[in-house]
Amino acid sequence: MTEHHFSEHRLSGHRLSEHHRTPVTVIGLGSMGSALAEAFIEAGHPTTVWNRTPSKAAPLVSRGAEHAPTVEEAVAASPLVIACLTTYEDTIEALAPAAVSLKGRALVTLNSGSPAGARGMAAWSLGHGARFLDGAVKNVPSAVGGEDTLLYYGGDSGVFDEFASTLRVLGGDTVYLGADADLAALYEMAVGGTLLPALVGFFQGAAAIQARGLEVASMVRFSVKWFEMINSVLPVFAEEIDRGDYGKPASSVNLFLAGAAHDEELAKEANLDMAWHKPFHDLLRRAVESGHGDHSISALTEVLKSPRLPA
Amino acid sequence: MTEHHFSEHRLSGHRLSEHHRTPVTVIGLGSMGSALAEAFIEAGHPTTVWNRTPSKAAPLVSRGAEHAPTVEEAVAASPLVIACLTTYEDTIEALAPAAVSLKGRALVTLNSGSPAGARGMAAWSLGHGARFLDGAVKNVPSAVGGEDTLLYYGGDSGVFDEFASTLRVLGGDTVYLGADADLAALYEMAVGGTLLPALVGFFQGAAAIQARGLEVASMVRFSVKWFEMINSVLPVFAEEIDRGDYGKPASSVNLFLAGAAHDEELAKEANLDMAWHKPFHDLLRRAVESGHGDHSISALTEVLKSPRLPA
Repeated sequence: MTEHHFSEHRLSGHRLSEHHRTPVTVIGLGSMGSALAEAFIEAGHPTTVWNRTPSKAAPLVSRGAEHAPTVEEAVAASPLVIACLTTYEDTIEALAPAAVSLKGRALVTLNSGSPAGARGMAAWSLGHGARFLDGAVKNVPSAVGGEDTLLYYGGDSGVFDEFASTLRVLGGDTVYLGADADLAALYEMAVGGTLLPALVGFFQGAAAIQARGLEVASMVRFSVKWFEMINSVLPVFAEEIDRGDYGKPASSVNLFLAGAAHDEELAKEANLDMAWHKPFHDLLRRAVESGHGDHSISALTEVLKSPRLPA
Repeated sequence: MTEHHFSEHRLSGHRLSEHHRTPVTVIGLGSMGSALAEAFIEAGHPTTVWNRTPSKAAPLVSRGAEHAPTVEEAVAASPLVIACLTTYEDTIEALAPAAVSLKGRALVTLNSGSPAGARGMAAWSLGHGARFLDGAVKNVPSAVGGEDTLLYYGGDSGVFDEFASTLRVLGGDTVYLGADADLAALYEMAVGGTLLPALVGFFQGAAAIQARGLEVASMVRFSVKWFEMINSVLPVFAEEIDRGDYGKPASSVNLFLAGAAHDEELAKEANLDMAWHKPFHDLLRRAVESGHGDHSISALTEVLKSPRLPA
């Protein structure tokens, strides 16, 4: 199959090494999809691309990609089809006209979504005879192809094994999580759930710095070190949570609650909207009510585990 | 003055090198205060310690510290007095009996608090004739003394200049922010404001991983890389905010809003309390209402800048 597809691509003037490389199709050419396609082109893979808005394909075609006129032809062009759309729903909608061509091919989805969404995507794919792998790119588009860039996958181990060297083109730190098709989505949400809250914390700090007439750039170096500090304590918290033992705190719930008291003073001084802090303070107070006041802040995990009953 | 204080400490059998080192007093021996005192002892500084609960001093005394019986004697023992209590209010309360001894000494506070709290602390200190510097240790106690450990200070530049080499014992990355006594508290809150939201995001992810019967330890490596990714984009966000130009987004507000839709599915599946997400979704929606939908996520800074008016 590789040779067959090679011969299709030979005409488009790919570099000589490509006949050793697996042909790949990339569906969805947003900033991440385009970065994926670029990495494959750069590595000498015959690369077919498709996007609902065809103009997005132009920069990739100028670098050597084939632009398939229809999604059916895009899917038919390669044994490995990578879809990078916004949601699983978008992916199913985009692939629907090509469903019959999916039979026997490997379909890899790289988008955000819930584990339930990934399971739905897997069922749809298997229903059309595709072999399915779901993954996540744990970095920004500009990092795609980097030696240290992390991607992880869950689903058909045969797909991962067969295409491991091709998938590794997207990032040197490529991990297979297991056979469940929703594992990457589970980790994606578990790991990625820090992003928005961490950024909002940073943006609020930026607003406070600006309110003082200072440049936000002046805090970046400090914030970077702060996240490095957070990284240094995550293994300790993970161990506490895995053992369910919060009794030897490096930072207690009560210490965080004491710190929370300063928020309002800063909000007033810098004219900031800190309404988003309230649920955090509520979590701290509920942890104290549950007897976790002198326990590690990681005991908040227990409070988060079950939805609060209506009062 | 150094020689005078050296002679007081000579009797306690400090190592020979200490007569080159500035005597230091550390008030407040929680985990951070104890780590500070240890670093000074280790570096050969004659170190006097005091804590309201005297038993906390024992491990430090066994390593060569002097334990002052009263806070007055602790303050009188050194030209440089470092207070590491929980709040500025605690610090003033602890130092009040020693206020008369503060005259002419350098007082450095290392605790959390608001800029307003730091200004109040400065006024109190100056009122008693002390020279005042406020700082923040941007790391965990175990990192105190590390070459890369960050501490920053604001206030009396004379104090910073005179004691720079002594303060650098606490961390190799020691920064003077400026003459305003509340600058360290401002940066402390601006930078530190990411901690609780980032941790709650991690704990929620941990709960989701546990709900699946997996070990939280399995996600740590991924989370660490994720925060490194966040660090890599902070300079870009800072520049957008400083320029007030959000028009070339790497990640748009709308993209985050699309991702927010998955939260509820995961909450249901893993039986998690995600009530704390609601204010984040509200911020995203308000950003869209303000015309920032296709702008960079850093445009949330503008939404955070002024308190929401009651509807």
